Amino acid sequence: MTQYLVGIDIGGTKLATVVADNNGTILHKVRQPTEAGYGSDYVVSKLIKMVDQTLALVEISRSQISAIGISCGGPLDTKTGIVYSPPNLPDWDAVPLKKILTTEFQVPTVIENDANASAYAEWKFGGGQGYDEVVFMTMSTGIGAGIVSKGQIYHGASDCAGEVGHQILIPNGPLCGCGNRGCLEAICSGPAIARRAQEAIQKQPETEMLKLAGGKITAVKSEHVVAAAQNGDLLAFDLIHQTAFYMGWGIANLVNIVNPEVVLIGTIAVAAGDLLLDPIRRTVQQMAMTRPAQTVRILPAKLGDRIGDLASISLVI
Amino acid sequence: MTQYLVGIDIGGTKLATVVADNNGTILHKVRQPTEAGYGSDYVVSKLIKMVDQTLALVEISRSQISAIGISCGGPLDTKTGIVYSPPNLPDWDAVPLKKILTTEFQVPTVIENDANASAYAEWKFGGGQGYDEVVFMTMSTGIGAGIVSKGQIYHGASDCAGEVGHQILIPNGPLCGCGNRGCLEAICSGPAIARRAQEAIQKQPETEMLKLAGGKITAVKSEHVVAAAQNGDLLAFDLIHQTAFYMGWGIANLVNIVNPEVVLIGTIAVAAGDLLLDPIRRTVQQMAMTRPAQTVRILPAKLGDRIGDLASISLVI
Repeated sequence: MTQYLVGIDIGGTKLATVVADNNGTILHKVRQPTEAGYGSDYVVSKLIKMVDQTLALVEISRSQISAIGISCGGPLDTKTGIVYSPPNLPDWDAVPLKKILTTEFQVPTVIENDANASAYAEWKFGGGQGYDEVVFMTMSTGIGAGIVSKGQIYHGASDCAGEVGHQILIPNGPLCGCGNRGCLEAICSGPAIARRAQEAIQKQPETEMLKLAGGKITAVKSEHVVAAAQNGDLLAFDLIHQTAFYMGWGIANLVNIVNPEVVLIGTIAVAAGDLLLDPIRRTVQQMAMTRPAQTVRILPAKLGDRIGDLASISLVI
Repeated sequence: MTQYLVGIDIGGTKLATVVADNNGTILHKVRQPTEAGYGSDYVVSKLIKMVDQTLALVEISRSQISAIGISCGGPLDTKTGIVYSPPNLPDWDAVPLKKILTTEFQVPTVIENDANASAYAEWKFGGGQGYDEVVFMTMSTGIGAGIVSKGQIYHGASDCAGEVGHQILIPNGPLCGCGNRGCLEAICSGPAIARRAQEAIQKQPETEMLKLAGGKITAVKSEHVVAAAQNGDLLAFDLIHQTAFYMGWGIANLVNIVNPEVVLIGTIAVAAGDLLLDPIRRTVQQMAMTRPAQTVRILPAKLGDRIGDLASISLVI
C-alpha cells in the first residue's frame, strides 16, 4: 500500500496542511487563518480537522500516512516536541504539539522551527542542493536563519542556533520585536525597511515609492522600495544600499562564525535580486575574513512560495 | 607493544613537541623558538628533529608511535593538511605539513587550527567535559574560537568556523591585525586592552597600572590592567568593564548563532575570573535572545598552561 506524508505549517496568521507522496510531490493543500487569539487548543483542533480535510480531498485514509512534519515558529524543543510561546503565537505556553499529533494520528511526527525547516527544504529541494554547508536566511517580516551542515540541521543546545537576525549591530539602534535594540532584524526586515523609507520620504517626498504606495507615506512598504529602486529612483536606491550594508555586515559576522559554502536569502532578496545581493556580496567580501569570504556564495533562495509546503514535508521525506 | 602519541604545537614564537601515552599523559616535552624568519623548510625540519629528540628522551622509537596530532595557526585545510600563511607564520605558503610528517614518520597525522584543537582538548579533558555543545574562546594575543558539537569539531566549509574574534562590532573602530576595523579582537585582545589602558593612563596617570608596569606607560600590559582592577584601581576597573561589554556583545551574537551550552574563555578571562566574567555574563543575558541566553554558561577555561600540549594530543587520542 502506498504511503503518504503530511506536512503542517503553523504561522501567526495562516495555517496550512499538505499531503505529499514519497517523492515530495504535493497532492493537495488546505489553508486557513490561524485565529491565534482563540488560543492553542482551538488552533490545534483546527489543525487536526485540516489534516483530515486534506486527506479526504485526495481520498487517502489516516492509515495511509507514514509520517507528519511540522514547521512552526520557535522557540520549540525538537526532542520533546513542545512549542514555547513563539512571538507570533504569544499565548502558546508549552504546547506538547508533537505528542498530541502522534497520539491523534499514530505516526512518527517531526517538528522544527520554520527557519530550520525552510533551510532543510532549500538544502533538499532548492538552492542548497549539492552543498555540504548551507545557511538559509529569511528576509521578510523577520530575519532568521537555519544552518544545514552535512545534511543535518544544526540545532545548538536548545534548538536556537541560527538566530542571526538578533545579532546586535548597533547597541543603541532601533527597537527590535525581541525587546533589544539595533538587531539586524530591526534594521533590515521588511517592516524595518518600510520604517526607514517612510522616515526618508518625510524629508524628501519626491520619490516613486510614494506614488507606488498610492501617495500615502504610511502605506509605503519594502516592496515599494524594491520596485522604485529597480526603476532607478535614487532615494529608494540609497535605502537598498543602506540595507545591503547592514545585511552584508551581519552576514560577514555569520560567515566568520559558521563558514558556510552558500548563504541563500529569501523573500526580499529574491524580489530585489542583484540590486540588493551585489552590494551585500561586496560588503561581505570587505567585512569577513579572506578565506571564509572567498568560500561563500550569496544567492537568492530558490523555492519561493513553495518553501512553506516543502519545509514541513522535507522533515519526513 | 605499547603505542605512543606525538603532539606538535606550532606557534609564531614557540614550537613544542610532546610524547604522550594512550591516556593522554604527557611523558616528555621539548620546546624551541620558532625562528619563523628562516622560512617553512627550516621550521619543518626543526620540528622533525624535535620529535626525534622528544622520543629519544623517553627512549621510544619511531616505530612505537601510533599517530601524530598537530595544532597550528590557521588558515589550514584539515583534509589535505596544507597550511596557508597563518598571520603568525607569514611566509608559509601552502605548506603540505600533514603529507611531510606522514611520509617522515609513516603514521596517521591529524592537523587542526589551534583554536579548534584547544576547544577539542577542553571538551575532552577540561571545562567542556560532559557538554554536547561547547565553544572555547582564546582571549590573549588574539581572539578566536573552536566549536565542538556532539563531540565533533565544527569546521564549516573551509575550516574557518569559529572566527568570532573577527566579527565586526564597530565598522569604523580600531584597526585589527586582519586588516579590518572594529573587530572584537581589535578591542578585547591582550594588546588591544593594553592599548586602551595606555591611552587612558595618558589622560589620568594616577593609577596602580602604571606602578605595576614600572612607571612606564608603554610597558603597561593587559596583565597590569587585570591585577590593578583586582586591587580596586578604578581606572583599571573601568577598562575591565569596557572590555566585558564588548566581549559580552560579541559572545551574545555568537550565542544567538551557535546556541552553545557552555562558552569557555581562556587566558585573560582565567586570570581575571569573575571580575571580568560576571559583567560579561550580564551583558550576554541582556544582548542575546532569552532562550539561548538562559541555556549558556560562561566559564573560564580549565586546562590553563596544559592546553597547548593537550590540544595536539587530543586530536589523536
